[in-house]
Amino acid sequence: MDKIPYDKTADHSRAMAEKRLDFLKQQTQADLSHIAQFDFDPALTQGNIENFIGVAQVPLGLVGPLLIHGEFAQGHFYVPLATTEGTLVASYNRGAKLAAIAGGIQTTVVEAAMQRAPLFVFENARQARQFGQWVKDHFETIQQVAESTSSVAKLLNIEQYAASKMRWLRFNYHTGDAAGQNMVTKATREACQWILKQGVEGLSHFSLAANFDTDKKHSTINTLHTRGKRVVAELTIPKALMQEVMHIDGQVMAYQRNLSNLGAYFCGSVNNGSHYANGLTALFMATGQDVANIAESASGLTYTEIKPNGDLYFSITIPSLIVATYGGGTGLPTQRECLSILGCYGKDKVNKLAEIAAALVLCGEVSLSSAIIADEWVSSHEKHGRNRP
Amino acid sequence: MDKIPYDKTADHSRAMAEKRLDFLKQQTQADLSHIAQFDFDPALTQGNIENFIGVAQVPLGLVGPLLIHGEFAQGHFYVPLATTEGTLVASYNRGAKLAAIAGGIQTTVVEAAMQRAPLFVFENARQARQFGQWVKDHFETIQQVAESTSSVAKLLNIEQYAASKMRWLRFNYHTGDAAGQNMVTKATREACQWILKQGVEGLSHFSLAANFDTDKKHSTINTLHTRGKRVVAELTIPKALMQEVMHIDGQVMAYQRNLSNLGAYFCGSVNNGSHYANGLTALFMATGQDVANIAESASGLTYTEIKPNGDLYFSITIPSLIVATYGGGTGLPTQRECLSILGCYGKDKVNKLAEIAAALVLCGEVSLSSAIIADEWVSSHEKHGRNRP
Amino acid sequence: MDKIPYDKTADHSRAMAEKRLDFLKQQTQADLSHIAQFDFDPALTQGNIENFIGVAQVPLGLVGPLLIHGEFAQGHFYVPLATTEGTLVASYNRGAKLAAIAGGIQTTVVEAAMQRAPLFVFENARQARQFGQWVKDHFETIQQVAESTSSVAKLLNIEQYAASKMRWLRFNYHTGDAAGQNMVTKATREACQWILKQGVEGLSHFSLAANFDTDKKHSTINTLHTRGKRVVAELTIPKALMQEVMHIDGQVMAYQRNLSNLGAYFCGSVNNGSHYANGLTALFMATGQDVANIAESASGLTYTEIKPNGDLYFSITIPSLIVATYGGGTGLPTQRECLSILGCYGKDKVNKLAEIAAALVLCGEVSLSSAIIADEWVSSHEKHGRNRP
Amino acid sequence: MDKIPYDKTADHSRAMAEKRLDFLKQQTQADLSHIAQFDFDPALTQGNIENFIGVAQVPLGLVGPLLIHGEFAQGHFYVPLATTEGTLVASYNRGAKLAAIAGGIQTTVVEAAMQRAPLFVFENARQARQFGQWVKDHFETIQQVAESTSSVAKLLNIEQYAASKMRWLRFNYHTGDAAGQNMVTKATREACQWILKQGVEGLSHFSLAANFDTDKKHSTINTLHTRGKRVVAELTIPKALMQEVMHIDGQVMAYQRNLSNLGAYFCGSVNNGSHYANGLTALFMATGQDVANIAESASGLTYTEIKPNGDLYFSITIPSLIVATYGGGTGLPTQRECLSILGCYGKDKVNKLAEIAAALVLCGEVSLSSAIIADEWVSSHEKHGRNRP
Repeated sequence: MDKIPYDKTADHSRAMAEKRLDFLKQQTQADLSHIAQFDFDPALTQGNIENFIGVAQVPLGLVGPLLIHGEFAQGHFYVPLATTEGTLVASYNRGAKLAAIAGGIQTTVVEAAMQRAPLFVFENARQARQFGQWVKDHFETIQQVAESTSSVAKLLNIEQYAASKMRWLRFNYHTGDAAGQNMVTKATREACQWILKQGVEGLSHFSLAANFDTDKKHSTINTLHTRGKRVVAELTIPKALMQEVMHIDGQVMAYQRNLSNLGAYFCGSVNNGSHYANGLTALFMATGQDVANIAESASGLTYTEIKPNGDLYFSITIPSLIVATYGGGTGLPTQRECLSILGCYGKDKVNKLAEIAAALVLCGEVSLSSAIIADEWVSSHEKHGRNRP
Repeated sequence: MDKIPYDKTADHSRAMAEKRLDFLKQQTQADLSHIAQFDFDPALTQGNIENFIGVAQVPLGLVGPLLIHGEFAQGHFYVPLATTEGTLVASYNRGAKLAAIAGGIQTTVVEAAMQRAPLFVFENARQARQFGQWVKDHFETIQQVAESTSSVAKLLNIEQYAASKMRWLRFNYHTGDAAGQNMVTKATREACQWILKQGVEGLSHFSLAANFDTDKKHSTINTLHTRGKRVVAELTIPKALMQEVMHIDGQVMAYQRNLSNLGAYFCGSVNNGSHYANGLTALFMATGQDVANIAESASGLTYTEIKPNGDLYFSITIPSLIVATYGGGTGLPTQRECLSILGCYGKDKVNKLAEIAAALVLCGEVSLSSAIIADEWVSSHEKHGRNRP
Repeated sequence: MDKIPYDKTADHSRAMAEKRLDFLKQQTQADLSHIAQFDFDPALTQGNIENFIGVAQVPLGLVGPLLIHGEFAQGHFYVPLATTEGTLVASYNRGAKLAAIAGGIQTTVVEAAMQRAPLFVFENARQARQFGQWVKDHFETIQQVAESTSSVAKLLNIEQYAASKMRWLRFNYHTGDAAGQNMVTKATREACQWILKQGVEGLSHFSLAANFDTDKKHSTINTLHTRGKRVVAELTIPKALMQEVMHIDGQVMAYQRNLSNLGAYFCGSVNNGSHYANGLTALFMATGQDVANIAESASGLTYTEIKPNGDLYFSITIPSLIVATYGGGTGLPTQRECLSILGCYGKDKVNKLAEIAAALVLCGEVSLSSAIIADEWVSSHEKHGRNRP
Repeated sequence: MDKIPYDKTADHSRAMAEKRLDFLKQQTQADLSHIAQFDFDPALTQGNIENFIGVAQVPLGLVGPLLIHGEFAQGHFYVPLATTEGTLVASYNRGAKLAAIAGGIQTTVVEAAMQRAPLFVFENARQARQFGQWVKDHFETIQQVAESTSSVAKLLNIEQYAASKMRWLRFNYHTGDAAGQNMVTKATREACQWILKQGVEGLSHFSLAANFDTDKKHSTINTLHTRGKRVVAELTIPKALMQEVMHIDGQVMAYQRNLSNLGAYFCGSVNNGSHYANGLTALFMATGQDVANIAESASGLTYTEIKPNGDLYFSITIPSLIVATYGGGTGLPTQRECLSILGCYGKDKVNKLAEIAAALVLCGEVSLSSAIIADEWVSSHEKHGRNRP
């Protein structure tokens, strides 16, 4: 039992999980019976977790059908969302219904790239500049070395950023159906080791990462230059429908958007929309994504306009959506089932999932915006939500 | 069966969940046996989800003991983390071990407030300014009206933000052990309805929300003025320990921090640290938090310095940590158990949970920083991580 | 002659200026006859410059009449602008003409405060928090001490910002007709010295400034919390006029604004308008302002909307306009004359000047926006501008 | 006389200037004798100003010798600064002296580009993406068309930015010794007109500018991707010198920098340094630069580190320094003389001027940082500054 602290055993057996739970019960006097109720062989979690003790059971609700006209996602989709927040599923559902009646959501993955951005520090700025030129001149070799580490990763280009005596190289890769953070770390490390071996003049320090990727947090550079997928969802809502289904006027929604744009800009918000994070997080939890990427994926650009005929064009852009249909948590039992519901498990599916995610976000934006305007927001929470203190 | 699309039934029974799953199986031909394996009465999820179909089972791993010297969290804690990302638990565990050897982490909740920020639009800027004065003059009445909606919410103050003919009022509340977003929405709505009844001169438009809260996304205003808890974790690592346990030099870590600070600043990142989001998300998923709040909670300020004696002072500040130990998903079976492991379920526990969260984040920062410097990062992923393409 | 390098003489005589010019001529073989052509006693520049050698002669052009309905600026104003950029005066003039025909610009100073933000560093976060409370408890004494240094400065409040073991205190003052940076530095220093004498527990470091003011550079905190004056200018342009005078449609301008808002937000710009800096800089140079404050004063928030009747409401907000009508360069010969043209020299005039500045900015925004839309932009530069390579 | 309002006469004669001044005197009863004291033929100002009435006389002070080891600026420079702010010249002079004793400042222009960023709006995101590919495929022709408008402008590349149904093209040019904003506007307009003539599928709106340049305001995109020159100045200050000349310890200055970095990051400042704007503005006013560009040029990245031997490495980076030695106001009498003092008038001089500007900024940063630490800041203002209220 004295081995539990800072456990390092590679043991993913049910027996070891129980041992840990027993230890915890003894330490905390807590009843831990539900955590232990997983219905799969815990050996499956090898590569997904260490010191396994059981599972969190997170409720799944269903949104749909979501009508999508994507390049990869086409037709009606039922979307499983994992959340503990009342009203969330109902709200996205309401948006999905409106979207379907309006004719469906068009989705487009406009760019894709995953990054690792090593830092090279020199004796002075001039050497850093010279190194920048050297990297440009040797791009093809660097590419070969980087790509030698994986059958999937493709190095697209290397952006360069200069300050003081530093040069950040931002390696952009295609990573197939994996999110790819580990893949690009490995590839970039290999490339950098090759670079370092060439004898870089004036180099005083090297670091494989120094916040320019940017990983697990939002940054303007990610908004500008894509991290994961840059995906757009668009919907044109006929004038009559707004009133009928959402009980508001399209002009009023456009007016509210104008104000919300100013608000977001004024207070330094990283998303001028309402709550991209809600739908995305619930989808990520359901489908075995790296949920911490919500920190990056929840930023976005909402844009609407009133068409000459009075219809409302509504779009959302997610510049740094990080999703996978392969690797990571996607193969675990319930996660894989949720991906299967979407027809998104496995290879050549990642753009489809990205499109579904964007369409979902759009539903939530239309729905919450309408609710705020129609003042149905509080009452809706009172109806669906748990009674809170 | 034709009722499944845009389901609105309030039925949270197991039978209805099965009906929905049957419908899904029929639609998608997917095997959905794991989703259905929840071990509790789904009626419990009323208020947490709509259109319930089952659960996502997310692996839980154990970190600890984490030695914390907080005002609310004191002693050794075992922290359950829900994640599907290999290496994560091992990495936080390594940080926890170092922190304990170094004498433990000091944690402090330095501020607390939850917001709703309604917008008042006027005919012109002068009327908006006049309204601002009126609000100041009537603060006590507004406070009474707002607080009449809840036995918990306490209105602390109202910040005002002016642009064009607009005035945003940012209502700051204490919300007890709940995260409080719904509570403050309700209270603020009541206060605003009272304000509107007084006949506000020149008012042309009102909106209960217009991006100044800021909800479900990071903003500079939240970093400056706290959303949820502003919590600090601090650790002083003796010079000798750095080398022994982390295999690096404190001077090198401080140097790397200097570079990472510049990187984060340069690229417009909202966090100058490494990966607050990883630990926080895993803790949020385990303990029934509103995981979408990671979009707000993952921003932060990392600060280190070398002490005259060569020791390394390492601190993290989370300015907008949104946590709850009551309400929302905290009462669901596994979530409640995870809170119990931490001694954090129920009332008067929220500051304790905030302190544990901050201490956990600090462990992750120390650990990953060290790994990058010692170049153990890639190899560690190769050891613990799933083989990826 | 050997005294010229790093000159420290307090001598502001014409003879000394000539001596310095002779030295320069000898060093550089340049003809420096124009610099020497100032028409006032250089002793006047004591307090404005050191190592005086002569003057830069910057061309002045005239905009107006600008019709303003302010609380301080009322009526028609001719505005002298100092610039070397062709088209600038003509463009602002065009906007002024439109504004006058449209009925004039309403201006409002909605807030005013000048800052100094000292930093107190402690042993740990808890002591910093305790200090924060102490400062709140002793506000009145701190106020008295601060205000004892000046007959003008009034301490309004002290904002507090917490991170790690630090506490920034942001002292907000009214500073009369001076911009006030030196006044508030002196007052805050005195207040801090008093604080330090009380024996602050755990204090490890103090700095009178550490970037939280924020001085001579834009920051979000200044946009949120005002530095100098927060001033709004508003204009409603009748639908018919847009076409007649600006040759464009109001709907088109509102559409373009929607796009420009997205552009500014997307690329992380600190002003969603077009070129506030042009008019402000020219006004600052003409009237003896501290022109370096353009770095702070040029940020802003542009907001427009189409009224139900088709008229265009156009507003600009400058959240950190730093102007003075007393002190600094305002008393120098040509600068004072320019202030006199505006009726703005001396005491109790600063709000008037702030209103004129805002009205001017609005003219430039309307004018350039129209020009871009009507594609008159390039041709206008070709007409007025210097032939460039 | 009735022609003065909204004057449009192209008349740049002395007689017309006097007529305008007479009109102003009549309107305002102000004495305007100094404004009229310019010593050159006002016809020279054609292309620099409209509605000419005279000149602002701005005091010039001298800093130097500034010892620079640039690629273009080499040796000792005396720098004329135009300002009305007491202490400014003395402070930069103090920094220049320290820098010279320390061995001189190394300067490097690491990148250079001037932009215009037209916006293309489509029916939907997919068409916008397709257009992006088309632009890539036709880069060479676009380049030819753009460059046909000028013998100087060279189109380097076109960055693309995507959101919603929009595509911004950010054209990057080399512009010789001119700042180049007008040159690139003209070239880009020509290129866009060619593009538009090709019949772009789905195009619904075009705008030559929509805030992505970013012109006359700071933006993160400019910090990342250079506007004008990206220039670095570096200085290594021997440990002993800091104490001797600046009366402070290098370790203390590095510590203060660590705190100032956090402060700037925390409050959302666009420059983590102290006051780049002061020196730059004074240099810009003296040398006929477009001073409004201070809004862009005053942002920056300050980076310092303590070397193993205790020396202090101090660097500043200006990512968007916009300067010219040809065109604009550079040819006006006093402006040209000031450029001549620097040996920077005319062609092939712009990099030299950029290097001098950066070296100057570094002097100011070292000087003010030292003053704040040594608490000589207030007393220095009391000594040199004008007695203020």
